[in-house]
Amino acid sequence: MISVMQKHFGNASSVHSFGREAKRVVNGARDRLAAALGCKPEELVFTAGGTESDNLALFGTMHAQKSRGKHIVTTAIEHHAVLHSCQQLERDGFEVTYLPVDRTGRVHAEQVAEALRPDTFLVSVMFGNNEVGTLQPIIEIGEMIRSTGRDIVFHVDAVQALGAVPIHCNELPVDLISFSSHKINGPQGVGALYIRKQRMIEPILHGGLQEKKRRAGTENMAGIVGFAKAAEIAVSGLSERREHDLKLRSALLSNLERTVGSEHFRVNGNQEFYLPHIVNISFPEMQTETMLMNLDMEGIAVASGSACTSGSLEPSHVLEAMNLPQNLLRSAIRFSFGLGNTSEEIEYTAEKVGTILTRLRKKI
Amino acid sequence: MISVMQKHFGNASSVHSFGREAKRVVNGARDRLAAALGCKPEELVFTAGGTESDNLALFGTMHAQKSRGKHIVTTAIEHHAVLHSCQQLERDGFEVTYLPVDRTGRVHAEQVAEALRPDTFLVSVMFGNNEVGTLQPIIEIGEMIRSTGRDIVFHVDAVQALGAVPIHCNELPVDLISFSSHKINGPQGVGALYIRKQRMIEPILHGGLQEKKRRAGTENMAGIVGFAKAAEIAVSGLSERREHDLKLRSALLSNLERTVGSEHFRVNGNQEFYLPHIVNISFPEMQTETMLMNLDMEGIAVASGSACTSGSLEPSHVLEAMNLPQNLLRSAIRFSFGLGNTSEEIEYTAEKVGTILTRLRKKI
Ligand SMILES: Cc1ncc(COP(=O)(O)O)c(C=O)c1O
Ligand SMILES: Cc1ncc(COP(=O)(O)O)c(C=O)c1O
Repeated sequence: MISVMQKHFGNASSVHSFGREAKRVVNGARDRLAAALGCKPEELVFTAGGTESDNLALFGTMHAQKSRGKHIVTTAIEHHAVLHSCQQLERDGFEVTYLPVDRTGRVHAEQVAEALRPDTFLVSVMFGNNEVGTLQPIIEIGEMIRSTGRDIVFHVDAVQALGAVPIHCNELPVDLISFSSHKINGPQGVGALYIRKQRMIEPILHGGLQEKKRRAGTENMAGIVGFAKAAEIAVSGLSERREHDLKLRSALLSNLERTVGSEHFRVNGNQEFYLPHIVNISFPEMQTETMLMNLDMEGIAVASGSACTSGSLEPSHVLEAMNLPQNLLRSAIRFSFGLGNTSEEIEYTAEKVGTILTRLRKKI
Repeated sequence: MISVMQKHFGNASSVHSFGREAKRVVNGARDRLAAALGCKPEELVFTAGGTESDNLALFGTMHAQKSRGKHIVTTAIEHHAVLHSCQQLERDGFEVTYLPVDRTGRVHAEQVAEALRPDTFLVSVMFGNNEVGTLQPIIEIGEMIRSTGRDIVFHVDAVQALGAVPIHCNELPVDLISFSSHKINGPQGVGALYIRKQRMIEPILHGGLQEKKRRAGTENMAGIVGFAKAAEIAVSGLSERREHDLKLRSALLSNLERTVGSEHFRVNGNQEFYLPHIVNISFPEMQTETMLMNLDMEGIAVASGSACTSGSLEPSHVLEAMNLPQNLLRSAIRFSFGLGNTSEEIEYTAEKVGTILTRLRKKI
């Protein structure tokens, strides 16, 4: 990225040699990202992040397909980039079915099948949930949709799944897939949308001819190059990372059993189908905000809901959709593991959670 | 930017200390950008570039104001980020008046006044044109709109004007102003929209609560910091840069008189109101593409229309709107000066243009 910023500040759309060089840089990154994601370079559109990818998927499909119907199927536990886009689409006159999830945060392909209407033109279900880590049966849903023989666009938000679960776009029964760079330690503010068929969507940003007319605007060249590199690293290191995360995950749980006691916490989310780097745990004795603040003072960065809404005091829409009882809903903490985390840090975290809860009990 | 990428990879929306630190970084950049642009920090929304800023201005106003009317006034010489957005708005059922320009590429406030209809809710006129450099009478237009006492939103695309002309947002009679970082030597893929009143627009990217709910998506922190720095440098160095550009401009023209002969070229655009860093010149003896290629081989990077469309062989919509005769239309070259350019380079350029034209004449 540094070398791009210092040397390749040409505009990738200019025809002179500086522009052509810039275009080579962007397309080289596209080639590498496509190889990492298992698709053709021309199936990828670079965006300004996961949020824009989701918005492009939903509004872009709407613009291209609206003559075919006005009904969309999604789930209650999508990221707000999908949910709030759906709410906007409702204001624009479309109808959206928000499928409920089971207590583990999972939807089932039969639910999607039952929700389909003759005027359904789009289904959007996320790959893995960002708050509780639960994986969705994407392949079953995609195959079910294909088996209907109908022309329904299937979008998957894979922002949290990239680098955590193997993803080979061309082998998935999916039409549009959203990605974000910063979730795999790449730069913030860059992402991509996989688009199986060029004509499936219309742009939401209008202007120049960039990205084969699918997304106008001068390309964030350094960001794109950083994203492609991050994807290469994430995909080639996936099984190692997975092992690392699973080790940290079980270390966290077993350490908490020791420091907190298994009767004092509850793991939320599916225990069979989950992203290895996210674990959501409720400590019913202490409210989320209090735990967050106490852990923060110990240098431990955890979260309530998703980062984008974490300023708000609303309980998580994901945990609500999972029908968590109030005491678990109000005390949930999202732990996530990153590349740099160590077993020692996990042990330290579990110790601190234990100390914080003991301190609370003494006070009472 | 490097230090942000290496140290501040927290998510500005997270509540823990890494997130708060990231938020401080973003808001520090916002403060500095606001100071450079003469507005309050909360009046600025960061975007992924000039194109998104223009799209947010037009579609965001449409969403917020559509109950008030369906008519938009703009000009025929806007950047495609505005023109193509307007065309999309027409497909969505809105009506757009594209004002013609005079032979120098200028519209006049009276034209705008005459075009206003009872259902006009938005006027969009660019500050300075990116192809010919002509400045528009923004203040007259803004004052005329205000004098009507009507609630018409006035948007100005100042992407090319930033750093070339003094811009103090709060002193302009304008509601929305688009900016792009890479035009002032900042990073590509980041920009901003000045929004005079928070409720004037609705978001076009839906999701998290970032940017006070006006633009969802994890912030491109490094880009934002780079943009703010570039704006500080551009604004504080404006009069110096202006002098530098004007010197290069007149050097180019006087050198071309010597090497090409004044009867063999014509300067397009307004010769009184212009951006100092852009000069558009037709050499009627040689088609644009041929001149471009020949100059490129000499290491000189010039352009036909705007970069975003320069792959296309269509003649420039700006020069067409200026009613240029075919021979000038088909032979126009856009020269632009940057920070690093020197008088020697300008002399070299004029020499080369001369040589290229002489070579052509010998061939014939
Ligand atoms: C599942 C999911 N989708 C979309 C997004 C939005 O991506 P970005 O942060 O790049 O805007 C996120 C990030 O929080 C996410 O977790
Ligand atoms: C006048 C004008 N508006 C908008 C844009 C688009 O900005 P960006 O390149 O950041 O998408 C440009 C850039 O070419 C421009 O010159």
